[in-house]
Amino acid sequence: MEISELQKARYEYKPKLPASLSLALDEIAVKEGGPTEALSDREEFKKIFARTYGKPVVAFSKGGEGRKLSRRALRVGAILSGGQAPGGHNVIAGLYDGLKAGNPDSALFGFLDGPGGLVDGKHVELSAQAIDAHRNTGGFDIIGSGRTKIETPEQFAASLETAKKLALDAIVVIGGDDSNTNAALLAEYFLEKGSDVKVIGCPKTIDGDLKNDFIETSFGFDTACKTYGELIGNLARDAGSAKKHWHFVRLMGRAASHIALECALRTKPNVCLISEEIEAKALSLESVAGSIVDSIVKRAVKGDDFGVVLIPEGLVEFVPEIKRLIAELNDAVSGDAADEGLSLEARLEGLSSRVSAESMRALRAMPADIAGEFLADRDPHGNVQVSKIQTEKLLVGMVEARLRELKKQGAYKGKFTPQTHFFGYEGRCAFPSNFDADYCYALGFGAFALVAAGLTGYISCARNLTAPAAEWEAGGAPLTMMMNIERRHGAQKPVIKKALVDLDGRPFRAFAALRDDLAVHSRYVFPGAIQYWGPPEVSDDVTATLRLERGGE
Amino acid sequence: MEISELQKARYEYKPKLPASLSLALDEIAVKEGGPTEALSDREEFKKIFARTYGKPVVAFSKGGEGRKLSRRALRVGAILSGGQAPGGHNVIAGLYDGLKAGNPDSALFGFLDGPGGLVDGKHVELSAQAIDAHRNTGGFDIIGSGRTKIETPEQFAASLETAKKLALDAIVVIGGDDSNTNAALLAEYFLEKGSDVKVIGCPKTIDGDLKNDFIETSFGFDTACKTYGELIGNLARDAGSAKKHWHFVRLMGRAASHIALECALRTKPNVCLISEEIEAKALSLESVAGSIVDSIVKRAVKGDDFGVVLIPEGLVEFVPEIKRLIAELNDAVSGDAADEGLSLEARLEGLSSRVSAESMRALRAMPADIAGEFLADRDPHGNVQVSKIQTEKLLVGMVEARLRELKKQGAYKGKFTPQTHFFGYEGRCAFPSNFDADYCYALGFGAFALVAAGLTGYISCARNLTAPAAEWEAGGAPLTMMMNIERRHGAQKPVIKKALVDLDGRPFRAFAALRDDLAVHSRYVFPGAIQYWGPPEVSDDVTATLRLERGGE
Repeated sequence: MEISELQKARYEYKPKLPASLSLALDEIAVKEGGPTEALSDREEFKKIFARTYGKPVVAFSKGGEGRKLSRRALRVGAILSGGQAPGGHNVIAGLYDGLKAGNPDSALFGFLDGPGGLVDGKHVELSAQAIDAHRNTGGFDIIGSGRTKIETPEQFAASLETAKKLALDAIVVIGGDDSNTNAALLAEYFLEKGSDVKVIGCPKTIDGDLKNDFIETSFGFDTACKTYGELIGNLARDAGSAKKHWHFVRLMGRAASHIALECALRTKPNVCLISEEIEAKALSLESVAGSIVDSIVKRAVKGDDFGVVLIPEGLVEFVPEIKRLIAELNDAVSGDAADEGLSLEARLEGLSSRVSAESMRALRAMPADIAGEFLADRDPHGNVQVSKIQTEKLLVGMVEARLRELKKQGAYKGKFTPQTHFFGYEGRCAFPSNFDADYCYALGFGAFALVAAGLTGYISCARNLTAPAAEWEAGGAPLTMMMNIERRHGAQKPVIKKALVDLDGRPFRAFAALRDDLAVHSRYVFPGAIQYWGPPEVSDDVTATLRLERGGE
Repeated sequence: MEISELQKARYEYKPKLPASLSLALDEIAVKEGGPTEALSDREEFKKIFARTYGKPVVAFSKGGEGRKLSRRALRVGAILSGGQAPGGHNVIAGLYDGLKAGNPDSALFGFLDGPGGLVDGKHVELSAQAIDAHRNTGGFDIIGSGRTKIETPEQFAASLETAKKLALDAIVVIGGDDSNTNAALLAEYFLEKGSDVKVIGCPKTIDGDLKNDFIETSFGFDTACKTYGELIGNLARDAGSAKKHWHFVRLMGRAASHIALECALRTKPNVCLISEEIEAKALSLESVAGSIVDSIVKRAVKGDDFGVVLIPEGLVEFVPEIKRLIAELNDAVSGDAADEGLSLEARLEGLSSRVSAESMRALRAMPADIAGEFLADRDPHGNVQVSKIQTEKLLVGMVEARLRELKKQGAYKGKFTPQTHFFGYEGRCAFPSNFDADYCYALGFGAFALVAAGLTGYISCARNLTAPAAEWEAGGAPLTMMMNIERRHGAQKPVIKKALVDLDGRPFRAFAALRDDLAVHSRYVFPGAIQYWGPPEVSDDVTATLRLERGGE
């Protein structure tokens, strides 16, 4: 197996640990805070989570009062759940190193290809060699990932069965909000069934939307944004050199616009759309396109027929008329194969009796290929596949139409040459930045410590992340305190609350304060490629989002 | 102006120079070899280049016989020509530093936005501050670039006029094969008109197709391929983690497939198409798609419904039936606005009397949106815009159709989920790798030395590039020795010969020896982001293409 020089060199990197996890294990005390509450519907939560609700937040510290870590041999299973995020391998490495430090006879198993591996009992025991081959690398390929949700009584029972067969002490779920919700439900279920298998979560998602008082950032966000920032900076430099392209960049991140916002703070593009703002102001797609047109027209006056526009992947779901269109299509259209041979026009005709006139207008106003994307194959739940809609091309089409009008009116004399891009998969499996390598290793090591402290239904945390790693505050928080009740697929369900971009938060306000200027002038910043060595301000920096949220500038 | 931490840190980087250019200038001798010849049509060349033909190759060395560098104050104008390539700013910085080392009263001017700046006399004098603000950065934004060709007698006369007005001693043209052909013609023209303004070229292009005995690699190829390699490696890691996507990646590089080949050598994808091979074997598009289908089917048998396919941008021009289609369309279709409102079907109908039946079949076999791209707006010369054709989607469409057939026959049981990408602009303006930063600085410094030696019609060279920079052999080669006569736009013209991928060369053979294995197995290599610091094997490596061509493994 050929290994790149970078990968070989990264094997030698020793992730930095918080001081409280660098101690001899017997010195670590697990301090408890007061009882906690869910974010809403507390009585309901007390029923659903009868055995795990209301537990205290815990922090690791040196000596003194508090639980101690068990040194007995432990058997733990790890699951990588959902989309890849840089650093997942380091969570597993930290967990492994913690287990082996606790007791050399401890064993770590990996469930294969996501939560389905737990349900089906598909697993491997992770050897020291396997761990070493994946330290500080990107990807989830050590055991694979998957999107199976453990939902049915049969799946829960099968999961317990697997845990029993393997004589597990704990399961560590490395995933996003849904996967950690699942972890909380599993923890409760196991107790309910009289099992003492513990369940611990770890906050993963490049989207950055698993965030609250105890999770300052989800892992992978740092590396993914730095990778996209590199590319956007390169495009901006290209735009300013060739002086003839407008680059429209759609960025992964469907539910929230954290990635787009972070990339905007890092690279200072001319326009960055923020879905949460569009929804809050109930902006139409036309007015969104209009804001881009404004920038193009103003820059053309200066002779600058080039620019950069950032677009969050989920944008269309936040534009009221398109949100409605999608909802109506989800209800009205089967997406079945019978439609496949029909022309777009015939399919639109067939739709007209089943969706509102407004939605038909919205569809007909789109370029044909984009309208086709709304009508294309459905996801397994029968829903429009929003992630496949090329919003960047939709906006380019609308912008072009508007610029043609303005040209006729003499209000625009520039030349518009768009280039579209979608960045997503490129950043999910990058080698984790030093920050993510350290953070993930700490989360994994912390997950071991939570298990060894006999806790369940917790998520591994590290806080104070803008300080040097030694000063990070490692501990755990009960998953239920991050949850509320939401309607999902027609039923009220307890779920971890997603963190959307806070329009009153410092990251958004920092961007909003700049954007009128950015829309006109070229203030591009070129972050360059992620550096793993070099001056610490280059190789060890954190995201602008984290820095601003933590009070920095 | 906000500057990224990486950019600040890169300002401090001191490019490494060949030993022969690190001497005190008075110690440098310019040694001459024997007379040189053009690649073909030598008698014709002697006429066209009556004053510059047949000059010797020159090498810089320490002391001894040979021309000396003039220490008088020089006035030099620099031009950035054509598409951006990482390191252009360092060519200018090297040239500037050489000029100032020669004589502090020397002056460097930059012509704005490409060769058009010379014709129109648009220029700036480059200050120490401007140079320092661009050292070791990507992009051509210090003076902009452009694609104007100096072709007409009026343009040549205007260029001389500008040179006279600025009292220039020399012009340095930083560009690809066409731009350096232009440099050779300018050099001859100036002498013909009795002017002693010298013209020196520098070999720029990310495409890697400006290459010969004296140019081991064009600058920018290293950085661009490393940037694409980073992204392809990340996609491959994602593919192997999620285990459900086939990534089809089209890579910039229209005339030659060097970029795709280098990326294949760096990342070991399942399939990499090489245009030169397709042309040599006269493969049909169907058989090209068939080679991808083979890999998909074989991998599906192993349960591996994922993979990575690399596609050179210019592919369609090398497939005989599509090459013919494009030629016929260039002749037959005006691309005029009258067609704009028509449906694809109507446009195809209109075409049927003007192109061959084979070409109509090829068009009709394509997915509608791709066929539309062939019929879309023409470039300013009235030609199909090949760079806008989404070959990756064309191939996906053909692969899908074939897999459906195989599924019906029971010969394929996998699930095919394609994702398409185009990487080009992302790599043209990256911060130059240490290699490109050093190489470009040496080329720029060498260009100064060629000017100070009183030479014209030369290209700046550095050879022995796999050795440490101190051992590089700096010098110059007469541009005419790289030229032959080719038919361009209907006329016989002297041009620098493009280097296509050599199917007998070591890079291609190294890839060809692996590809049957790669088509079936996951042997992905993950190069990671370009590193500017760290272990030298990571931060200072060269491309696999250069290493293999220079005899390495």
